[in-house]
Amino acid sequence: MIDRRHFLAAAAATALAPVLPAAARAPLSGSQVPGIYRRKLGDLEITAILDGYVPLGAKSFSSTDPATVGQLVAGAGLDESLPTSVNAFVVNSKDRTYLIDSGSGAWSGMGDTMGRAEANLRAAGIEPAQIDTIILTHAHPDHHEGLLTAEKTARFPNAELVIHETEHAFWHDDGILSQAPAEAKPFFASARGALAPYAARTRKVKAGEVAPGLMLEHAPGHTPGHSILRLSSGSQQLLLVGDSIHNIVLQTAQPEIAFVFDADAKQAAASRRRVLDMAAADKLVFSGAHIPFPGFGRVSKDGNGYRFATADWSYTL
Amino acid sequence: MIDRRHFLAAAAATALAPVLPAAARAPLSGSQVPGIYRRKLGDLEITAILDGYVPLGAKSFSSTDPATVGQLVAGAGLDESLPTSVNAFVVNSKDRTYLIDSGSGAWSGMGDTMGRAEANLRAAGIEPAQIDTIILTHAHPDHHEGLLTAEKTARFPNAELVIHETEHAFWHDDGILSQAPAEAKPFFASARGALAPYAARTRKVKAGEVAPGLMLEHAPGHTPGHSILRLSSGSQQLLLVGDSIHNIVLQTAQPEIAFVFDADAKQAAASRRRVLDMAAADKLVFSGAHIPFPGFGRVSKDGNGYRFATADWSYTL
Repeated sequence: MIDRRHFLAAAAATALAPVLPAAARAPLSGSQVPGIYRRKLGDLEITAILDGYVPLGAKSFSSTDPATVGQLVAGAGLDESLPTSVNAFVVNSKDRTYLIDSGSGAWSGMGDTMGRAEANLRAAGIEPAQIDTIILTHAHPDHHEGLLTAEKTARFPNAELVIHETEHAFWHDDGILSQAPAEAKPFFASARGALAPYAARTRKVKAGEVAPGLMLEHAPGHTPGHSILRLSSGSQQLLLVGDSIHNIVLQTAQPEIAFVFDADAKQAAASRRRVLDMAAADKLVFSGAHIPFPGFGRVSKDGNGYRFATADWSYTL
Repeated sequence: MIDRRHFLAAAAATALAPVLPAAARAPLSGSQVPGIYRRKLGDLEITAILDGYVPLGAKSFSSTDPATVGQLVAGAGLDESLPTSVNAFVVNSKDRTYLIDSGSGAWSGMGDTMGRAEANLRAAGIEPAQIDTIILTHAHPDHHEGLLTAEKTARFPNAELVIHETEHAFWHDDGILSQAPAEAKPFFASARGALAPYAARTRKVKAGEVAPGLMLEHAPGHTPGHSILRLSSGSQQLLLVGDSIHNIVLQTAQPEIAFVFDADAKQAAASRRRVLDMAAADKLVFSGAHIPFPGFGRVSKDGNGYRFATADWSYTL
């Protein structure tokens, strides 16, 4: 039974209760935002372009002491599958637009966690036809398959292709191919296929300034002609280390930790140490093809190894 | 004079030279990508929304030893202006859409480095009318001015507003206001003005589950009713620490380092230590209003302090 006192109490409670509107229900997005991120380097605008990720797995890395990798993975709380970014970079100098590596391409069959470089490039407002120059750090599928369309034609119709002469020669050497183990032969086919549409506009280079402010340096080991890029504009410098680093936690802690696809593990480790030393000594902005996206940071010495600190978000350009 | 031999050599050189197309010249973008970033937490979709940044400056932080802050800033290579993110967060549970803090608003006059939360919310595909519930960690302008339109009406027409009862009472207490120093009085006017349009749909709460999976905890000191949120879904938990931390490098190294706008520095430091302890002990995903955008990471114990490790990019949701 509701008497007057109860009625008034109920009315008061109603008046005090918040007005709860019907839920508006914004739908779940279900996907991450586009993998693009910019930063300024002097007069240059750098855009990191995410192709996706590949779970390299802790077993892809090895040290002289077999327990080391597992200890570092556990100590840093890393997922044992080691999901690893695949990054490309646009460098826009106002006069020319450069692309450093091209991702794996949507058509390469490297799995649905990759192949988004072209979509992300377009999300950044850049059409493939606007790329003037592509610089390949080396000819591995996650760096060059993005050069192709589904029809195996040139995805970048107006771009010249720049590659270290040693890298180009290695993948086109029939003698080396004939002696390569069976599991390596598809890599030769992939490199030749991706580079073929660009044959008439390929510039094979040695170390040096391949474009104004873009210094290419030979950093062999991962592949024979593997190269890094040192970009300069005004007082700022950025080092793009390509595949000198495959895991920034493991290989800064111990640069001698090898990656399974390094062609010459000892030479790769020497290049890695040289690259990290250069970055720490010269206080360079640092990134690379497999640094966790968006990938920019700084390297400092830490005992016999190094430490990588991710840069804060660039609010403005 | 060109003889046949020279002509053939010149022709061969021409054939070998790369075809250099006219520069396509993609225009410089001139601005960073929208400050939005998603991650999954169990069934919840969390979206970090960047309002902008504020240069807090090293002088806003103080330690018992005056040299400490400067040493930490220099040691970490931080810019002395300490550009500091202002983050809000959307939590989408499929049934309801929550907004944790609202940024400074485009109309608040806090400078052109801030005020982008609404634009970034829309860039994330979420309309203000789709927000069902707003939870304020506390009533400071960079958290609540985004509640308003330019006409000082409610920016979020369908949202209830949740705030700790102590926080609400503090800013609406005329006795406290009358005794507040002159420079503090505008903060009362700002809080009252931003909360007024929501008065009929404000839910004042104590610590507890304010929505399914969203636990509010009282973490006073920065303000009397300052609160943090612990979100749970499935086996995953995320701690959003509001203004318990204003600089993640300084205040993890030494949680006792005070921020100039902490109402009660000692109480704020005790709350900060409790929050960091909780995050480290329970291995929670960690973020907050002033953690460098996109802001997610993990906290671990490090001597008498803590260490924050930024989480890798979430490729998928």
